[in-house]
Amino acid sequence: MSAMYTVLAGGVGASRFLQGLAMTVPQHEVTVISNTGDDLEFAGLHVSPDTDIVIYALAGVVNPETGWGLSGDTFAVVEALQRFGYERWFSLGDRDLATAVHRTRLLRAGWPMHRVVADLTRAWGLDVRVLPMSDDPVRTVIEGPEGDLPFQEYMVRRRTEVDVRGIRFAGAAAARPAPGVLEALREARAVILAPSNPFVSIGPILAVPGVRQALAETRAARVAISPVIAGQVVKGPAAKMLAALGQEVSALGVARLYRGLVDLFVLDTADAGLAPAVEALGMRALVTETLMSSDERKRALARAILAALEVPR
Amino acid sequence: MSAMYTVLAGGVGASRFLQGLAMTVPQHEVTVISNTGDDLEFAGLHVSPDTDIVIYALAGVVNPETGWGLSGDTFAVVEALQRFGYERWFSLGDRDLATAVHRTRLLRAGWPMHRVVADLTRAWGLDVRVLPMSDDPVRTVIEGPEGDLPFQEYMVRRRTEVDVRGIRFAGAAAARPAPGVLEALREARAVILAPSNPFVSIGPILAVPGVRQALAETRAARVAISPVIAGQVVKGPAAKMLAALGQEVSALGVARLYRGLVDLFVLDTADAGLAPAVEALGMRALVTETLMSSDERKRALARAILAALEVPR
Repeated sequence: MSAMYTVLAGGVGASRFLQGLAMTVPQHEVTVISNTGDDLEFAGLHVSPDTDIVIYALAGVVNPETGWGLSGDTFAVVEALQRFGYERWFSLGDRDLATAVHRTRLLRAGWPMHRVVADLTRAWGLDVRVLPMSDDPVRTVIEGPEGDLPFQEYMVRRRTEVDVRGIRFAGAAAARPAPGVLEALREARAVILAPSNPFVSIGPILAVPGVRQALAETRAARVAISPVIAGQVVKGPAAKMLAALGQEVSALGVARLYRGLVDLFVLDTADAGLAPAVEALGMRALVTETLMSSDERKRALARAILAALEVPR
Repeated sequence: MSAMYTVLAGGVGASRFLQGLAMTVPQHEVTVISNTGDDLEFAGLHVSPDTDIVIYALAGVVNPETGWGLSGDTFAVVEALQRFGYERWFSLGDRDLATAVHRTRLLRAGWPMHRVVADLTRAWGLDVRVLPMSDDPVRTVIEGPEGDLPFQEYMVRRRTEVDVRGIRFAGAAAARPAPGVLEALREARAVILAPSNPFVSIGPILAVPGVRQALAETRAARVAISPVIAGQVVKGPAAKMLAALGQEVSALGVARLYRGLVDLFVLDTADAGLAPAVEALGMRALVTETLMSSDERKRALARAILAALEVPR
């Protein structure tokens, strides 16, 4: 079995976890299933924020301050586009935009997304296999009081300051998992749900027909890492969404969402008191430090999880 | 008649002449018919070198050193694209690339080229009307000893160091003039063939069915300005092409190519001795300084031509 670890991944939190994992096990043993629900078209270019964050982070070129984009990038193109009436709320660095230019060209030439992503990971010198969740378009839509918002409009333009009434994944029902996705779930030694937003990062992946079932049926050890620490998230709107959608804003609230889908739930030492309630949901609880504020902490988290899975490293 | 001057234009030489004309007559009296034969696709983006040179020059933002591109532009995107295997021979600044991104998006959305160009000229605040010669694709092909080369490959990648056996305009036979092109030729007070390469700048425009006939039949005064001064050209491969295609490398050689199409031929004082031979071709000769090395010289050339046409200014 060439790929032993399959990671369902969103953006920043997932990319940090993956950095730690890739420092701990050989890259070629890691398969990432990447959320493409927040893909968007910007100025006619196809941008895949979550996939690019993962690739840039693993290539060691991600902007460490933002968690997305390329370190030291410039913004000449988006500035120049304003002349033609493009709004400036969605920012894309020049070198980041080069990735989008290349991706758009390949998609226009008829390449399916999984081939495009394979080309990008190769170009960035990665041995990790990154798979988009689907070659078909799935778009995360935030249902707000004034109507629907594409995810990036909610996230970036409106800075998540919208009352979330619901979330749906347009196109999901007709989407097929990208080639390799179901196999990566079925044949892995461990499937890891990264510390990403359960609604808008992991949710779209689970919404692709066949994925949830493959996760339910796999013989792999199934692990989820809470993106919520002491009632807060490091980045993004997960806490707000838990509250808005009537869930408890805690690691336990996240664990409830993954009930039946994971065997091991990783929560921070700050949330040790929630471990019994998590175990009452029918999953083991692993309490460890989950804040990935340094490379050493990223590695430590990966090692702790592998140890809990009884994988010797 | 709103547009009194119609200028057939290629790139750098034409853009300098148009700067002088636009300093001399109201911009809204000028219509440009722009060569799109050297358009190309670069990294999936539609680039229109000649049209953009004209727009940037008239907007006062062209790079004065190169004659193309934007003054002070950066090159982060083309540098970053190299990672994905794109060759570096075709250079496009970041802000220049923003124009291409916008153009490509509009074309993909189904806009005909003349609407795209109108949008670009509006965005750059021009009152000059710029028309592409055609909404249909016409591609200048250089026939060399090793086969065909798209124009930009010949011009930029191979630095014109190719033995030109022939030139053809792929797609021209099926192309229609863009809306407004024939009217601009028929209804102008003067039609001016800018000091551009007669083969690859003016040639493609004349190859669009209907254009040559409209030029032959118009009641407008028809003027051409020699791009050749004392046997040399300021920029580009016109001299080489004249020689390769068996023409005299001189203003007279250019005048011969325009026989029957123009009434007035403008040649430099350095070529005053050729005036009688030019007139023997059946056109008046105007001898004046044609090297447009300063704004004053650009204006002086425009004024001299208008005076020769007996247009009081």
